Amino acid sequence: MTSTTPVRVGLLGATGMVGQQCVLMIEGHPWFRLAWLGASERSAGRSYAEAARWVQDRPMPEGVAGMPVEAAAPAADCPELVFSAMDASVAGGIERAFARAGHFVVSNSRNHRLDPDVPLVIPEVNPDHLELVVHQRRERGWPGAIVTNPNCSTITLTMALAPLRAFGIRRVLVTTLQAVSGAGYPGVAAVDMLGNVVPFIGGEEEKLAVETCKLLGERRGGRVEPAEVTVSAHCNRVPTVDGHLVCASVELEEAPSPAQAREAMAAFRGPPQEMLLPSALRRPVRVAEGTARPQPRRDAMAGGGMAVTVGRVRECPLLGLKFAALGHNTIRGAAGAAVLNAEVLMAGEWLAPDARARCGKRNRKAPAWQGDGV
Amino acid sequence: MTSTTPVRVGLLGATGMVGQQCVLMIEGHPWFRLAWLGASERSAGRSYAEAARWVQDRPMPEGVAGMPVEAAAPAADCPELVFSAMDASVAGGIERAFARAGHFVVSNSRNHRLDPDVPLVIPEVNPDHLELVVHQRRERGWPGAIVTNPNCSTITLTMALAPLRAFGIRRVLVTTLQAVSGAGYPGVAAVDMLGNVVPFIGGEEEKLAVETCKLLGERRGGRVEPAEVTVSAHCNRVPTVDGHLVCASVELEEAPSPAQAREAMAAFRGPPQEMLLPSALRRPVRVAEGTARPQPRRDAMAGGGMAVTVGRVRECPLLGLKFAALGHNTIRGAAGAAVLNAEVLMAGEWLAPDARARCGKRNRKAPAWQGDGV
Amino acid sequence: MTSTTPVRVGLLGATGMVGQQCVLMIEGHPWFRLAWLGASERSAGRSYAEAARWVQDRPMPEGVAGMPVEAAAPAADCPELVFSAMDASVAGGIERAFARAGHFVVSNSRNHRLDPDVPLVIPEVNPDHLELVVHQRRERGWPGAIVTNPNCSTITLTMALAPLRAFGIRRVLVTTLQAVSGAGYPGVAAVDMLGNVVPFIGGEEEKLAVETCKLLGERRGGRVEPAEVTVSAHCNRVPTVDGHLVCASVELEEAPSPAQAREAMAAFRGPPQEMLLPSALRRPVRVAEGTARPQPRRDAMAGGGMAVTVGRVRECPLLGLKFAALGHNTIRGAAGAAVLNAEVLMAGEWLAPDARARCGKRNRKAPAWQGDGV
Amino acid sequence: MTSTTPVRVGLLGATGMVGQQCVLMIEGHPWFRLAWLGASERSAGRSYAEAARWVQDRPMPEGVAGMPVEAAAPAADCPELVFSAMDASVAGGIERAFARAGHFVVSNSRNHRLDPDVPLVIPEVNPDHLELVVHQRRERGWPGAIVTNPNCSTITLTMALAPLRAFGIRRVLVTTLQAVSGAGYPGVAAVDMLGNVVPFIGGEEEKLAVETCKLLGERRGGRVEPAEVTVSAHCNRVPTVDGHLVCASVELEEAPSPAQAREAMAAFRGPPQEMLLPSALRRPVRVAEGTARPQPRRDAMAGGGMAVTVGRVRECPLLGLKFAALGHNTIRGAAGAAVLNAEVLMAGEWLAPDARARCGKRNRKAPAWQGDGV
Repeated sequence: MTSTTPVRVGLLGATGMVGQQCVLMIEGHPWFRLAWLGASERSAGRSYAEAARWVQDRPMPEGVAGMPVEAAAPAADCPELVFSAMDASVAGGIERAFARAGHFVVSNSRNHRLDPDVPLVIPEVNPDHLELVVHQRRERGWPGAIVTNPNCSTITLTMALAPLRAFGIRRVLVTTLQAVSGAGYPGVAAVDMLGNVVPFIGGEEEKLAVETCKLLGERRGGRVEPAEVTVSAHCNRVPTVDGHLVCASVELEEAPSPAQAREAMAAFRGPPQEMLLPSALRRPVRVAEGTARPQPRRDAMAGGGMAVTVGRVRECPLLGLKFAALGHNTIRGAAGAAVLNAEVLMAGEWLAPDARARCGKRNRKAPAWQGDGV
Repeated sequence: MTSTTPVRVGLLGATGMVGQQCVLMIEGHPWFRLAWLGASERSAGRSYAEAARWVQDRPMPEGVAGMPVEAAAPAADCPELVFSAMDASVAGGIERAFARAGHFVVSNSRNHRLDPDVPLVIPEVNPDHLELVVHQRRERGWPGAIVTNPNCSTITLTMALAPLRAFGIRRVLVTTLQAVSGAGYPGVAAVDMLGNVVPFIGGEEEKLAVETCKLLGERRGGRVEPAEVTVSAHCNRVPTVDGHLVCASVELEEAPSPAQAREAMAAFRGPPQEMLLPSALRRPVRVAEGTARPQPRRDAMAGGGMAVTVGRVRECPLLGLKFAALGHNTIRGAAGAAVLNAEVLMAGEWLAPDARARCGKRNRKAPAWQGDGV
Repeated sequence: MTSTTPVRVGLLGATGMVGQQCVLMIEGHPWFRLAWLGASERSAGRSYAEAARWVQDRPMPEGVAGMPVEAAAPAADCPELVFSAMDASVAGGIERAFARAGHFVVSNSRNHRLDPDVPLVIPEVNPDHLELVVHQRRERGWPGAIVTNPNCSTITLTMALAPLRAFGIRRVLVTTLQAVSGAGYPGVAAVDMLGNVVPFIGGEEEKLAVETCKLLGERRGGRVEPAEVTVSAHCNRVPTVDGHLVCASVELEEAPSPAQAREAMAAFRGPPQEMLLPSALRRPVRVAEGTARPQPRRDAMAGGGMAVTVGRVRECPLLGLKFAALGHNTIRGAAGAAVLNAEVLMAGEWLAPDARARCGKRNRKAPAWQGDGV
Repeated sequence: MTSTTPVRVGLLGATGMVGQQCVLMIEGHPWFRLAWLGASERSAGRSYAEAARWVQDRPMPEGVAGMPVEAAAPAADCPELVFSAMDASVAGGIERAFARAGHFVVSNSRNHRLDPDVPLVIPEVNPDHLELVVHQRRERGWPGAIVTNPNCSTITLTMALAPLRAFGIRRVLVTTLQAVSGAGYPGVAAVDMLGNVVPFIGGEEEKLAVETCKLLGERRGGRVEPAEVTVSAHCNRVPTVDGHLVCASVELEEAPSPAQAREAMAAFRGPPQEMLLPSALRRPVRVAEGTARPQPRRDAMAGGGMAVTVGRVRECPLLGLKFAALGHNTIRGAAGAAVLNAEVLMAGEWLAPDARARCGKRNRKAPAWQGDGV
């Protein structure tokens, strides 16, 4: 992308925790400029600084503080590209309304993830699923479209599994140790989490099972044939702030040695890497050194929060291979996932012709390459 | 046991964290009276109050504070029954020396657990393994003997598995979330644990694999044929104080329904229950109500810390059955395990004749029945 | 009190966190039997098990689970003695309505604490303030009355100060480190508290300043002359579960030596001790041994949660004397405070004649004396 | 300093926690290059990667990993400027040996802080105390010298007090809430800190009292007249990772209003700011917005860990003014303090002529100005 004017974008659900993280990720992004904020009725009509109970460790960007918050309905001044961090209780209808009104909605909400004609995408893993957009528009008669990213723990697991696809993934048994920021704000009560573990997260085990299969599935025209992978999950909330840790055992058709698995993970690349997208890391999966890594507090921010760190790759006497993987749940697992989806839509060949036309021809060399960091 | 004089017992490794927990469990025990304390050279010659850096939440018993700490070597005034909470770096030789000198050593240390002629016992699960003592004495020519209990996480897992033996246990995939008190004192550094998880505990995954099979194995004369159960573990240290949580998926020959599994767990009883031993709970495995239990801070002290609490018993699409289980690691998983072993030795038929003679004929009605508590 | 039928009591705000703690304290109380539960409209008409989101570590008492929850309005079957754990946003009017309807309301809410004719009482400290009830009834024309206990951090501080009254308390500078359970449920968000401190608690510093002076004040007929003590507070929320720790420096007219102060604290007794009330500890203020005590996790449950533990009593180069004190915020600082107030009302001479008549003549020997515990 | 060759520096105590933080701060420093590492006998002869148990969240710099660790004794190839992060149990003699051998020792250890002829310096506060070096050398006959920085909690307090000197500081009552990283590694045991507070830190209250007075004192020739400020401290260890929070009440001769105090703090500058030293922030004291700040997890890294953040500046009914202040204990409070001391020595006029000659004439425009960050 050349140094032309950045693309104006909107943000639905701007005041919540994921919305705040989106604000931080869009702020300073080389391609995007936040131009419109939407939220619930309660917030509409106030400035962002008044409406949002800011809970990020980094301060609220000055330029955003004074922006007005609008009601979450399509409006004349709302840009075509709209991120959605709406709460799932209301996201469905609102996102459909925006797509119907011609907006390209890049959503982090779960409502449409499993719709047969809605792409559920991790750009490194299954960018070709974006082709569903063509069918979605045709079938629904929408000028716009909805594109989704998966659940935060699913992203971490799937990023670690994707490099193993060549070995034929059959069965996955995964136990998650999930951080409290994944529950939004206020989310989990402190009195439930201090020195404690809660061995249940509503709906999470189902999402891991279903979303992983759609992500690893094969697109056949306007539909995705889910991968025939059995995923069984135990989900736990643990007293960490950021970073979902997953302990996975995997059965593969041709089990690689741990060394081969580590090599495949470290070598993993996808189209975002080839396209040099601004939020794409050179090495999206990082193989940790040391026997006791990854650790949430020490590894979640690897690659600016966009890397998935894998460690303890070893033989599993039961399923063949086992390892631990960690991803930052609100960056790689939510706001960063949506931004990367938007980048690939902007830069890619997968968009329907009219969408590509709207986005314009982009220079795919990222002007501000983001290094791997720690 | 009638209200006769309590039996004098000794305690090796009295100053460490497990040793302190043993002090608390023996204190006020209806059968035992702490009469001799042994520890490392550094502590020998001082009073217990001087030698021990007391880190328990309950205060040091007054009667013990003034007791002298002796060197960890057999002595004339040391009772026949000796608990061992020695550190594994030195426990092996010391425990053998005591057995050779005629003492019955009930050990929490790992050194001799896997010796073919040393019983590794959870009294509810495999009390008949105590018969190995006969062979141990014959083969080693010892007037005394060594009896061991398993590792803390192994006890929690095995207590939850034992009720399922009738269904034929084949394979177990387990992820542990272990409390910091399991690492002793000072154990894990606070700076490593606050808001963090460490996905590695040295030697723990191996212990879970091997000890579980010995516990569930069958005694054939003087040897134990380990059960052919494949156990694959992921072990994590999490920021909880007490209570190891295990998330287990189990493959059984004839998979029970979740309801059948819950019933079998709730109905589980063993010889300690029949013998009404003082530390035996009426219901050693407790099936938790509520979707989000067991939780370490809220369930570890169930049954005075001697219950294993199971929850979330449900189908596993991969192995058939899955659940979460929690046990108090320093009580049920260490000090209480040793005390229960000693009780069963005192009361039982498994002791070699000369040992039984020494212990005397006991009334098996516990004078101070300990209820199930929460 | 002889072993006659226990007195039926009601509980307003039964479903909240303090309400739940009241349920636990009344359950098994030798004098009281929970006979009526009131809560917000939302809960009314459901059973207690349905209406309350139970967050206590101890399980919900079976007898209470099936009780119906009523709307928080005076009703025919509501007993005369009613505890109130209503949220402050609604407690005021409801408590007045109950007093007007003839109920004796023993409240933990802040709404009426500072009313000139409402007693604010810690039974060990200022039980004679209960005499205000006579004036309250006369002035307001109520057959019932309202009696209150102070804020949780104020109780801890005042219990530690009260033994020093003989030395003339002038000025107190106090910094609090308060547990999350003090914020109710859900209270503070986990994401705000893990590995963090929040140096502000709304209204808390003001309560410490004002309530302490009323508690230490002198009753002059139907009014209390507040003590002329300057209290300056810094209030912090810290990641502990239970137990408010206060670090206090105190200026006294005749500064005692640390040894004298410790002696006065350990010797502190009040009318509840003389009357042998069921919830009165023999030693309500406990002087901790050891240089690094009191600690919230290890000392909050001292005396079943009713003791205030003081440690590090030493000279303050600036104000004369300094120390740390700890009290269990939901027991000694809330539910237990209310129960002890009710006990002293039941047993005492301070009640107005008609109230005494209603309560009946009580035997002041407690049938189930509660020891000091740890 | 022009872009000439960086100055080679040594580091004593390189393997400990503060030593590791020094490694990170020197790495990439525009003026310094780490050229020599010294540590205890146990580490000597090994590579740094072998000798150091690295516990920082950021990875070990590659260039340092392979460097040899030497014994902590003066050696031919050891540079003249040597940082010391030695443990206090051994630092004293070793630092003297290096100074005697001609090295300029910039120490974080407490051993010599109170020596009358050793400067104890925070460059923003009392840089002129560095003149003591002239006397130190003369009196001790050393070609080198020892310069020290204060204790981590003292730095935080003093940085917040220094802007108030114009109002005449008389008395300070301070309660600290200190992070676990302040105790080094392994430091505090996790089992002591989870959900707990330890209301005692050995020697800390004394250091706060004495070091603060020396820092705020007036240099009279070769001696410092300590300020006549009474400091009384309550020190607590709390479960936070980084960042010491202090709650302070201050009595001043002419009490400023809170607004005046805030203004003085925000306007505070010192010679490091004038000299544009690389580690000097434009605003070393930052006045936080928001009622509930500063918070350790959210504010410790302000200004790259070099800012002290002050909040809740308000009237104290007892001493006049009160506030909360937070500083990163291992950066601003230790490694960064030493590095800033070294920068001011390099750039400044306070060094004795021969030292200045050795350091060379420096360009005081920092080539890599470090912004204020958050």
